[in-house]
Parts: sequence; structure tokens; C-alpha cells
Amino acid sequence: MKTLKVIKIGGNIINNQDVLADFLNQFSKIESHKILVHGGGNLATTLAKEMNIEVKVVNGRRVTDRATLDIITMVYAGKINKTIIAQLQSQYCNAIGFTGADGNTIISKKRPVKDIDFGFVGDIESVNTEVLNLLLENQITPVFSAITHNAKGQLLNTNADTMASEIAIGFSKTYNVELYYCFEKNGVLKDIKEDNSVIEDINANTYKTLFETGIISEGMLPKLDNCFHAIKNEVKKVCIGKPEMLFNSNSKFTTIQA
Amino acid sequence: MKTLKVIKIGGNIINNQDVLADFLNQFSKIESHKILVHGGGNLATTLAKEMNIEVKVVNGRRVTDRATLDIITMVYAGKINKTIIAQLQSQYCNAIGFTGADGNTIISKKRPVKDIDFGFVGDIESVNTEVLNLLLENQITPVFSAITHNAKGQLLNTNADTMASEIAIGFSKTYNVELYYCFEKNGVLKDIKEDNSVIEDINANTYKTLFETGIISEGMLPKLDNCFHAIKNEVKKVCIGKPEMLFNSNSKFTTIQA
Repeated sequence: MKTLKVIKIGGNIINNQDVLADFLNQFSKIESHKILVHGGGNLATTLAKEMNIEVKVVNGRRVTDRATLDIITMVYAGKINKTIIAQLQSQYCNAIGFTGADGNTIISKKRPVKDIDFGFVGDIESVNTEVLNLLLENQITPVFSAITHNAKGQLLNTNADTMASEIAIGFSKTYNVELYYCFEKNGVLKDIKEDNSVIEDINANTYKTLFETGIISEGMLPKLDNCFHAIKNEVKKVCIGKPEMLFNSNSKFTTIQA
Repeated sequence: MKTLKVIKIGGNIINNQDVLADFLNQFSKIESHKILVHGGGNLATTLAKEMNIEVKVVNGRRVTDRATLDIITMVYAGKINKTIIAQLQSQYCNAIGFTGADGNTIISKKRPVKDIDFGFVGDIESVNTEVLNLLLENQITPVFSAITHNAKGQLLNTNADTMASEIAIGFSKTYNVELYYCFEKNGVLKDIKEDNSVIEDINANTYKTLFETGIISEGMLPKLDNCFHAIKNEVKKVCIGKPEMLFNSNSKFTTIQA
């Protein structure tokens, strides 16, 4: 089977023009098939402030009301996605920007209202790989912003980490899929203040111990849940670390084991 | 040869949610291959005001500075394009949103500075039909917002009418291409105040006469130039009118003749 790298980048890369340009330059040189998934960085918050739109918070959780969804759509699918596409093209990496609505690639369901109404937030139901496969086979790289749709006309704000893992799983039967979560640290750390204290391998057992002893913080849990979800569903390799893990064989990072 | 309809819609359709929904509902039922090109409507102006960004005008001509380009990218490629894509999907029309940067489909050149520096405005140099063809052959409808790129990393604001005619010409060797400019009138009118005074056919000779006698106003000239450019370059059919011309065989509209 051919290798497909699904790579998620977060705010720390998107927020800095030079860092993003450097990342895209290296990303474009990856020879295997690849899919990029990006979040929004702090640009959405900045724009909301400029437009005097308040960030809605209920019980300490962010809520995506209609105005916020509009901003996310403009910033993620507009400004950030198209800036990335134009830069990749300048590096001879032929890319097309996607939301889950484009090509009907990712269908989600508006999160049901229990204690909190999260608004226009989508939980992924299915990934359709057909169109993406067609593009990959023609040397075109899909670049996803963190938006999906419900197939009934509604766009939905969707967690970028979850999108990356669901896309990876969607291709796991036809590709040798590797999933990379790029963020600001060298991986999962034993000591949060010490960037060299990388835990190089985590499996379901050590994960449990690390969590119970408080070494893994609350903030890392959703990301690690996505990692284990992927590795349990036939994704071959799941890694967390700085983008260097993709390009520099000497760099340290965390690998998730089944 | 198969038929390809290239359809451009303007602000009068985009600005009204119900009108847009109705149009997309009918558009999705068009059985031939089709490409949609849309401008931005007045949402970009509204957003610019909300963000206190002034519309820059030099010698009476709009200028696209960096802030304006950002707004256009957010509104055209983000909000409007993705709203259209989600609605088309809900009508079982599988569509993918494009700028000229996506798939490297439309390359343009920043307009050279003569009397006026128009800023980040692109004049189209080439249309690459390969990726679009691949999608059309797989029953996927490309939807373009009026943005292109220079292949060196720069997005450029581009006239939507011109994009539509250049896309139409790009496919004219492989498809029987029909180009439709949908706007708020029934076509080119003899009397601007009388919507039934449609001139049903215009050719290069009658165009000259109509212009010299002042029947065709300045505002229609760029649109008609795009029409004649297309018809001279093997586009089989070029029409101007209300969207009804596409769906209702009784409606009147203007057809451009070679």
C-alpha cells in the first residue's frame, strides 16, 4: 500500500507568517501522498474583536453562534486556507482547499443539546474518500480547514484534531496512513516546563498510568483521545510533536502505540 | 462534444438569501456539466465598514489594498463560496469551491501600474482545465469565487465576468461551451427603464451602432467586451439576462452573435 501522511497544524504555526511559510515550504517537499488539516489560530478572535462580536461562553465552554460561524468560515476557509493554497502553489505543490462541504467529503451532525447548546458545532459522522482519492491519485494535495457540513445546507464548526483523525481513519483501508499532530511542544512531556522530557512512546497502558499520576494534563486528553481512536482504527502511525518531526530525523517526538 | 454551461451570477442574486437559495435549487438541476462563477455582492462592503476599513478610491477607480484583499478573500472564498457549496450539497449537487489558486486553475498577473496602482488586482494569463476536467468528468461542479493567484504565492482580486469568459474559452476546444451572465435585467435593453425592451441578438456590427447611438451605456461595455471575447474564441453561445433564461424557455434575454 502507498503511504498517506495526514498532517494537522495548529495556531502556533498559523499565527506566525514566517513560521507558516517555512512549514509550507518543507511540507511541499514531502513526496508521499499528503493531506493538510489546519485550525484557525488567533485570527478569528482578532477579527471578532474588530467586528465587536463577543466570544460567547456558556459554563466556561465556547459556543459557536451564527456570527461566530460566519467569522470562522471567513477566516478558516477564506483567509487562512487560501493563503496556504497560494503559498503551496508557489512551491509547486498542487493543492485544493476543502471544507467538509466541498466534494461532500465530511458530513457531521450538529452536536445535540444536553446541558449546553454549543451552537453550530459538528460531530463527524462520515468521511467520503472518493473525491479525495481521485485528487491524491492525480498528485493534488487536499488542504482542509476545520469546517464540515450536515449535508442539509448547514456548515458546522468542527474540531481540527478530530477531523485529522477521522480523515486518517477514512483512508486506513486503502493507504498506509500516518497521522501527525504538529503543535508547539516536542511531544507529550514528562515535565511540562522541560521541552526535552519527551515521552517517546505511549500505549493504552502507559497512557492510563500517565494520566492517573497527573503527568498528562487535562489539555492533552482530547488530542490523545484522537490519537488512540486513530491507532485503534488501523492508522499505522500516530505522532505528536513539533513540525520538525516530519522533516528532521534527529528530532524527538511522541509516538502513540496500540 | 458534451455541453458545458459556465454561469456567472452577480450581487443581485448573492445579496438576497432567498433569491440565492432559489437560484441554487434550480442550478443544481441543470443536467449538463456546469461551472458557477460568483462575485461578492455587498457583503464585502458591509464587512469593510464593520471593520472600519475604508474603500480606497484613486481617480474614481477602486483600489485593492492588502486590507481589502483580505476582506475579499474572507467574504468571497470563505462565507459566500462555502454557503453556496453547502446549499448545493443539500440539493445533491456535488460541488467544490475554487479560487484560481486551488488546483492552480487560474493564473493572473498583478495589473501593471500606469496612471493608477490598482493594488492586488489580477489580469488573467492562463486557465488550466486539467483538474477541472477531472472533476467535471466525475460529476463534480466547480464553483469559483472571483480570486486568482500569480503562482508566486500572491492572491489577486479578479473581475468575475472576465473569469467566467476566460474559463469558458479555456474549455471551448473540449466542450460545447455556453456562457451565461446572470444579472438584474432581462438582457441588454433598448430603453434602460423598460425591462421588456430586450435586444434579443447583438453582433459586432449592431454592437457598434448601439454604442455609437448611446443605447448601450458605459456600464454595459466591460460585460459586452467579455461576451464578444468569448464568442470570438469558440465559445458556442453567450447570453446575458436574468437567471430565468437558464430555467424558463419563455423568458427573454440577449444572445451575443459572432
